[in-house]
Amino acid sequence: MKHPIQDIEYAEYLFDKFYSIGSTENGGVTRLGYTAVEDEMHEVFVALGKEKGYESYTDEVGNTYIYNPACKSDEDDEYYLVASHLDSVVEGGRYDGVSGIIAGLLLLEWAKRDGLEIPIRVGAMRCEESSNFGRSTIGSGLITKEVYKHDIGEAVNREGKTLSEVFKERGYNMEPKRIQGVKEYLELHIEQGKVLEEYDDSIGIVTTVAGPRRFRIYIKGSAEHSGATPMGMRSDALCAASELILEIEEIGKDESIYQSVATVGTVKVSPNALNVIPGEVTLGVDMRGIDSASLDRMEARLKSACKKICEKRKVKYYREKTSDIPPIAMSMDVQQKLLRAAKKLRIPHRSMISGAGHDAMSFANICETGMVFIPCAKGISHNKKEFATIESICDGAQVIYEHFKEEMEV
Amino acid sequence: MKHPIQDIEYAEYLFDKFYSIGSTENGGVTRLGYTAVEDEMHEVFVALGKEKGYESYTDEVGNTYIYNPACKSDEDDEYYLVASHLDSVVEGGRYDGVSGIIAGLLLLEWAKRDGLEIPIRVGAMRCEESSNFGRSTIGSGLITKEVYKHDIGEAVNREGKTLSEVFKERGYNMEPKRIQGVKEYLELHIEQGKVLEEYDDSIGIVTTVAGPRRFRIYIKGSAEHSGATPMGMRSDALCAASELILEIEEIGKDESIYQSVATVGTVKVSPNALNVIPGEVTLGVDMRGIDSASLDRMEARLKSACKKICEKRKVKYYREKTSDIPPIAMSMDVQQKLLRAAKKLRIPHRSMISGAGHDAMSFANICETGMVFIPCAKGISHNKKEFATIESICDGAQVIYEHFKEEMEV
Repeated sequence: MKHPIQDIEYAEYLFDKFYSIGSTENGGVTRLGYTAVEDEMHEVFVALGKEKGYESYTDEVGNTYIYNPACKSDEDDEYYLVASHLDSVVEGGRYDGVSGIIAGLLLLEWAKRDGLEIPIRVGAMRCEESSNFGRSTIGSGLITKEVYKHDIGEAVNREGKTLSEVFKERGYNMEPKRIQGVKEYLELHIEQGKVLEEYDDSIGIVTTVAGPRRFRIYIKGSAEHSGATPMGMRSDALCAASELILEIEEIGKDESIYQSVATVGTVKVSPNALNVIPGEVTLGVDMRGIDSASLDRMEARLKSACKKICEKRKVKYYREKTSDIPPIAMSMDVQQKLLRAAKKLRIPHRSMISGAGHDAMSFANICETGMVFIPCAKGISHNKKEFATIESICDGAQVIYEHFKEEMEV
Repeated sequence: MKHPIQDIEYAEYLFDKFYSIGSTENGGVTRLGYTAVEDEMHEVFVALGKEKGYESYTDEVGNTYIYNPACKSDEDDEYYLVASHLDSVVEGGRYDGVSGIIAGLLLLEWAKRDGLEIPIRVGAMRCEESSNFGRSTIGSGLITKEVYKHDIGEAVNREGKTLSEVFKERGYNMEPKRIQGVKEYLELHIEQGKVLEEYDDSIGIVTTVAGPRRFRIYIKGSAEHSGATPMGMRSDALCAASELILEIEEIGKDESIYQSVATVGTVKVSPNALNVIPGEVTLGVDMRGIDSASLDRMEARLKSACKKICEKRKVKYYREKTSDIPPIAMSMDVQQKLLRAAKKLRIPHRSMISGAGHDAMSFANICETGMVFIPCAKGISHNKKEFATIESICDGAQVIYEHFKEEMEV
């Protein structure tokens, strides 16, 4: 949709304020969670609020919130939390997370401009990416107590410090009280896929955030001389792994009608020498879906494929489940309202799943939660080439704003 | 066959003298070519000769030779060169190369004992393994001028020095004169495969040393979010690579009647992250055979498989030939003589190819050349678990000795 020039300019201004923080030589950004670079992002966020006369506060784990004191809800009143994150992966892009924060600031601006006292708080959640501690959505997970009920304190960052140690240094609390008063949690995020682009839609309303089931599969054959071992005397771990990789692709394809996916993302070959038949291969398998029955079928087929292929090829194997997060549904009510808003604004939109994980997952069980996706170029994310348009951010924010306006009129 | 106790004891004594040199913590040995550790191996070799009253000399590239001056050939007379190498791979075994040197010393001992003036020289070739300079059979290749006609001086070792620099430091000559007077080159070596073990044979007489044709295949798909990219929108470089790996295995199997083999030994996946579809994969392919027509067919099929699979999957690829060494036949005459000797000694034997490369390849074009293989446990080589029996070394040396005795009687 068309946006007033001042909206585009304000959004661009916000984007530019974050631009240089954590910039790397190769053109991307590295803004790891719970580091000084992420702190700087939060300081800029607070400063951008102050410019507009907003107030800010920080919770027990370092998440930052800003709000317009003119429309602050009373202690007991509920508020809309519009949030996302300000950290990034290593050598990541500038839109992942930041787009949602810009959307929140646009919403505060529009409400102020229109004189609407909508109780909005804009939240910047800490350490959403798993790049620093190997665990994701730490800030939102702790304050909702939905993620990481245990052992998260032991997670170690790239400098070898545990999260507990980092929290102690920073004066944070590993056991914060649960966030109160959230009426609805809303998050705008870049899609990180290319579904919207392929369908030429401007907005995606998320139905469910897929849950990853992850596996490590270790295959052991015999590492023998590649020249001196006839084909009939081999047990090649890589050939067994290749059959399994193709079978996992088939499993994903067969379950794609349920919007499931299956990927082998990592391969480690040993000894990985040109003159030795691969003796050991370890595969990292990532299965995601929104339908638990489909995920169960995929897991069962993976299990039988390992057995069938490895027995046929006389190689040993060991399969380990490394992650099992159930799919998390967004609020049906919020979805309906966002769809209605998009329709009213005549923005081309679609309901869709989120394959990636988001802070919204943490909130889904404690309040009504919804997510708005905007397209990102070619689906590229976690990469310096990540790109979304300012117009798209305004589109998404407008959908949420339209939903708020409808709510206020009730 | 049964061996006199003094032969076994002498062979064990020789083996023990080399044992500790270059030992590593994990139980193997690292004796890289043209390093101080290899020098030490050569010094022990010379000392072992001196104990028996043998003389020694070193050629222009550092290869060491010992002989019994009592049966030294005149300047113009031809001699039998019984040789192998004393270097190893990183964390390698103690039998690869050393077995052939022990066999040579046994031959000198037996000839002396039996009062036979057989003109034998035992040679220790330098840097047979590619582990230090990325190039193999350097010592034997330079003095025969059959291998490395060019650019070998530029080869860089693990310390970043070129072979030319190392030669300069050591006072060696990159352009030595060709070795003269070799009547026959004979090499005993562990098989480095498990053909002898599987067939329960004690000796292999090598017909041809397979020539490796090697390829690097680079496949480029799209690195996209593994959760956010539906199965139908992917171009997964790893799935394409897996199809190719299985096709290369099929090619090897189809050509196995010609004793050819095909192996994918190395795989590099990028970005190799659990939440990203593999965008780039590089495969290292090693094809070996003794039949050039079979090698040609394998190469042609590899070419068309790359095209077919990558076009079907809409991924890009680039194929590069990194090595192309023709198969090298051993002397038919020497083979017959060795077979006759093994038969006479009633040692279970078979004619077989060598899948691995050896110093014998360097000599095949300048003199009559033959190789005797002995079994190694489970075919394991280039590994601390490498093992051959002292009896096997004596078996192989006896076959060569019997051949020499037949020659002397003529």
